[in-house]
Amino acid sequence: MAPRNPGGSGGAKQWATNLTSIKPNEILLRGYRLDDLMGRMGFGEAIYLLLIGEVPTPSVGRLMDAMLVSFIDHGVTPPSTLAARNVATTGASIRGAVAAGVLGFGPHHGGDALACRTLLDEGLQLCSSGIPMTDAARNLVDRLVKCNDIPPPGFGHRFHTIDPRAKRLLQLAHELEVDHAYSQFLRALEHALSKHDALTGRPLPINIDGAIAAVCGDMGLPSEVADALLIISRVPGLAAHALEEQRREAPMRVISPTVDTYDGPAERPVPGRRK
Amino acid sequence: MAPRNPGGSGGAKQWATNLTSIKPNEILLRGYRLDDLMGRMGFGEAIYLLLIGEVPTPSVGRLMDAMLVSFIDHGVTPPSTLAARNVATTGASIRGAVAAGVLGFGPHHGGDALACRTLLDEGLQLCSSGIPMTDAARNLVDRLVKCNDIPPPGFGHRFHTIDPRAKRLLQLAHELEVDHAYSQFLRALEHALSKHDALTGRPLPINIDGAIAAVCGDMGLPSEVADALLIISRVPGLAAHALEEQRREAPMRVISPTVDTYDGPAERPVPGRRK
Amino acid sequence: MAPRNPGGSGGAKQWATNLTSIKPNEILLRGYRLDDLMGRMGFGEAIYLLLIGEVPTPSVGRLMDAMLVSFIDHGVTPPSTLAARNVATTGASIRGAVAAGVLGFGPHHGGDALACRTLLDEGLQLCSSGIPMTDAARNLVDRLVKCNDIPPPGFGHRFHTIDPRAKRLLQLAHELEVDHAYSQFLRALEHALSKHDALTGRPLPINIDGAIAAVCGDMGLPSEVADALLIISRVPGLAAHALEEQRREAPMRVISPTVDTYDGPAERPVPGRRK
Amino acid sequence: MAPRNPGGSGGAKQWATNLTSIKPNEILLRGYRLDDLMGRMGFGEAIYLLLIGEVPTPSVGRLMDAMLVSFIDHGVTPPSTLAARNVATTGASIRGAVAAGVLGFGPHHGGDALACRTLLDEGLQLCSSGIPMTDAARNLVDRLVKCNDIPPPGFGHRFHTIDPRAKRLLQLAHELEVDHAYSQFLRALEHALSKHDALTGRPLPINIDGAIAAVCGDMGLPSEVADALLIISRVPGLAAHALEEQRREAPMRVISPTVDTYDGPAERPVPGRRK
Repeated sequence: MAPRNPGGSGGAKQWATNLTSIKPNEILLRGYRLDDLMGRMGFGEAIYLLLIGEVPTPSVGRLMDAMLVSFIDHGVTPPSTLAARNVATTGASIRGAVAAGVLGFGPHHGGDALACRTLLDEGLQLCSSGIPMTDAARNLVDRLVKCNDIPPPGFGHRFHTIDPRAKRLLQLAHELEVDHAYSQFLRALEHALSKHDALTGRPLPINIDGAIAAVCGDMGLPSEVADALLIISRVPGLAAHALEEQRREAPMRVISPTVDTYDGPAERPVPGRRK
Repeated sequence: MAPRNPGGSGGAKQWATNLTSIKPNEILLRGYRLDDLMGRMGFGEAIYLLLIGEVPTPSVGRLMDAMLVSFIDHGVTPPSTLAARNVATTGASIRGAVAAGVLGFGPHHGGDALACRTLLDEGLQLCSSGIPMTDAARNLVDRLVKCNDIPPPGFGHRFHTIDPRAKRLLQLAHELEVDHAYSQFLRALEHALSKHDALTGRPLPINIDGAIAAVCGDMGLPSEVADALLIISRVPGLAAHALEEQRREAPMRVISPTVDTYDGPAERPVPGRRK
Repeated sequence: MAPRNPGGSGGAKQWATNLTSIKPNEILLRGYRLDDLMGRMGFGEAIYLLLIGEVPTPSVGRLMDAMLVSFIDHGVTPPSTLAARNVATTGASIRGAVAAGVLGFGPHHGGDALACRTLLDEGLQLCSSGIPMTDAARNLVDRLVKCNDIPPPGFGHRFHTIDPRAKRLLQLAHELEVDHAYSQFLRALEHALSKHDALTGRPLPINIDGAIAAVCGDMGLPSEVADALLIISRVPGLAAHALEEQRREAPMRVISPTVDTYDGPAERPVPGRRK
Repeated sequence: MAPRNPGGSGGAKQWATNLTSIKPNEILLRGYRLDDLMGRMGFGEAIYLLLIGEVPTPSVGRLMDAMLVSFIDHGVTPPSTLAARNVATTGASIRGAVAAGVLGFGPHHGGDALACRTLLDEGLQLCSSGIPMTDAARNLVDRLVKCNDIPPPGFGHRFHTIDPRAKRLLQLAHELEVDHAYSQFLRALEHALSKHDALTGRPLPINIDGAIAAVCGDMGLPSEVADALLIISRVPGLAAHALEEQRREAPMRVISPTVDTYDGPAERPVPGRRK
């Protein structure tokens, strides 16, 4: 129990923040006038600036956007989305539904990103002690496959046999030349895992949590920042589901996650812009 | 109390979502493959697509980003941020702190955007019934100033005599030719209010909630979507404060909002990009 | 927007609480030493003392306990409980699951207590202006049945044609001589409603929200306190479901509210104590 | 990542709860008709029944009540209470404020109960392997004092040099003959710690978290249930503070935890009842 100043005695200590300065008529975000940033910086870049303290390079900014977009929604399947919808059906506020959805990210849901980062950190430490990457990856996989009947964090998905988001994010990181040791070790793990297909009974490709863990590592983001990005990126999805619930459905309905369908637009090509 | 199917009887009704389609190895966001959007669309544009259903025009996309950036953080002053920090100091998870912060947006905090939108809708209805905008604005302001000792929603700020974010957002909307009736009526209200300075005792310029209300109106966003955007835009700020609290401060400290300082970088120019 | 002292300037105003005094080695709850209350007062009585400021009479204390027990759980059917379970299945903390469940009390779920209280207040005001109770009740019911296709707040239940909790609570209030004008007016409303069975298509008996609204009114509790009691009483239920979810079920499961069963003990008599 | 049935395919598995059975007009809590329990069982006893599955003995029921009362509020000092008040000042709902307060129980706040239980379990395992209790306690304390500059979990308090709640709870457990091995080992730890006063620089008496951990252990409650009891017991306090905030204070005020006072009743004797 850390010592603490007693309340009511005027004893609170001076403290400081280095995020945002507020003076009358002037707001500085990490030293930049917020009104100067408006119109000159995308939301993804501003999130990076706020969390890390510096304006990202164009490559890193584009990768941030890709990462945030990749996790923006996953339909009505995740428990976090169902928590948000169950709150929304009672007529509660959108912010209440979003808060409940945010709470629905536990160790088993989104937690893979943090756990995979720990695994990659361990692997890269082995490498830096002189062990070749292939051997380090094989050793880690052997240990994980023996001790657990669940896939290593960052691999496998309950819906997808190939996670299209993971594939695209790693490809973008490669194109933008932001794929370094973390991404390489992630691929080494995937390769080592593929030798165990017989044992695991199914292919265990890299999933989006794993790809985000590796790309954040290569971008130099601390692991707790990578974890926060998952929450930030999914909040629009939680809000969208809460809004749809209240717009389309009767209040107090029984929300069954096994009888839902999709009635939005069929597949259509992305309007031509950046390739 | 709406009728509801009893649980346990297999009676849940089929229901549909039009946001995101999930099939093995394929995720469609509003009809677009999510992996195709990654790297081609900024996070702000993707938020618009998810909430509204269509890809924004470049002007609207840039305005979305500006709006989201404008509200990303306001230092340690808002109660929502203090709620997030008080949760973070107990060693709770970042998602718990973010959820508590999201709950700290009540009618008096961020609620101005929704209330101002209602006011603008009322004003524009008067105009469409033939009353000139100047008269409609004067009538509304007369009523509001007489009945309340608080400023009309969207005007005045506890820190700023001119809200730099509001000024910049309305200027950008003008440059990008997205300022229509809502923005014009907001300015008409500001003009009518300025006649009452003697009465109100202080200038009541447009604040960021008011500017967001008007710009969202001119972009055609439903008012509940505009409300959700405030939450979406502030979540990175809440996460940043929770992370800073746990990184820089001792656990279980007394967080006094009157003895804080800013120790981040001094004002610096935004690196040259879009002007 | 209410004026507010700016942060960072040392300008926070002195403020006071009359709930609990904290000095070294001494905790006073509403003036009573907390350690003196321990072992001498039930939890229900202590909740009354904390919220109202005085020790309840034995009758009121017993009614408080009955009210809190009546709402302690309602199985896996309410959306609030499903929100808590969807959070728990991700491996999140019990407090995160409880918080999500608390958020799942919106206007359509538990909100009847507050709405019914407003209705009863309106009715009793009519009575105090000289209108006989029977007429006042008929007038209100006529208006409500004409204007809405939903039952008046406090009447009807999606599962029960007779709500056993409501019946017992009102009977207890009668036995303990705490049933006054509010309970009488609630019964008058029920009687007036029964004339409309043909119109409403089903019997609309008093539900637990209505009974709690009336009994709280007769106990002299402000309506917002009555509202808070619903949350307080259901928190043990939310915690119990979150604990059961994590103890009995696999993580990240699809929680369908239509295929659940009950496998607890069959009906058994309450061990003899107070009758 | 645990395997999961895909949504939309009708594939959710049957599942069961043993807490509460809901049939039309009949609610069974752990096999007892809820309406039969109303008026015959206190809220504290019903909480035990719901969480554990059986009606408590009178002694255990009285201890439950004492435990729940002991933790009902601790004034405006805890960060959880400040989180609830910061949400309430924005005009948000009481349930939103309560949820934020619940989230403000992290490892450093209330977490001692769980950590102390783990310590007691470890100690009792040493004893059951034949080591005398005094030696086992001394060994654990030696290790903890050497390795950490914070007190062992369950000992010391930032305000109190003697925690009056802990003293009373352990005394009650003794009177009611519910103090067994856990309480004895807790006292053994306190004794061993007292030898280290010179080292720790201050007395480290048993705190309420430690007393609750031991008493729950002796009552046979699983540690996660003991953890849930802390949340359940504090919710009334969180609600009371949120209600007081909205009743007594201006909205959007700066809530400084260093300039508060208590203006409730002065110390008064508990009205005579059970001793």
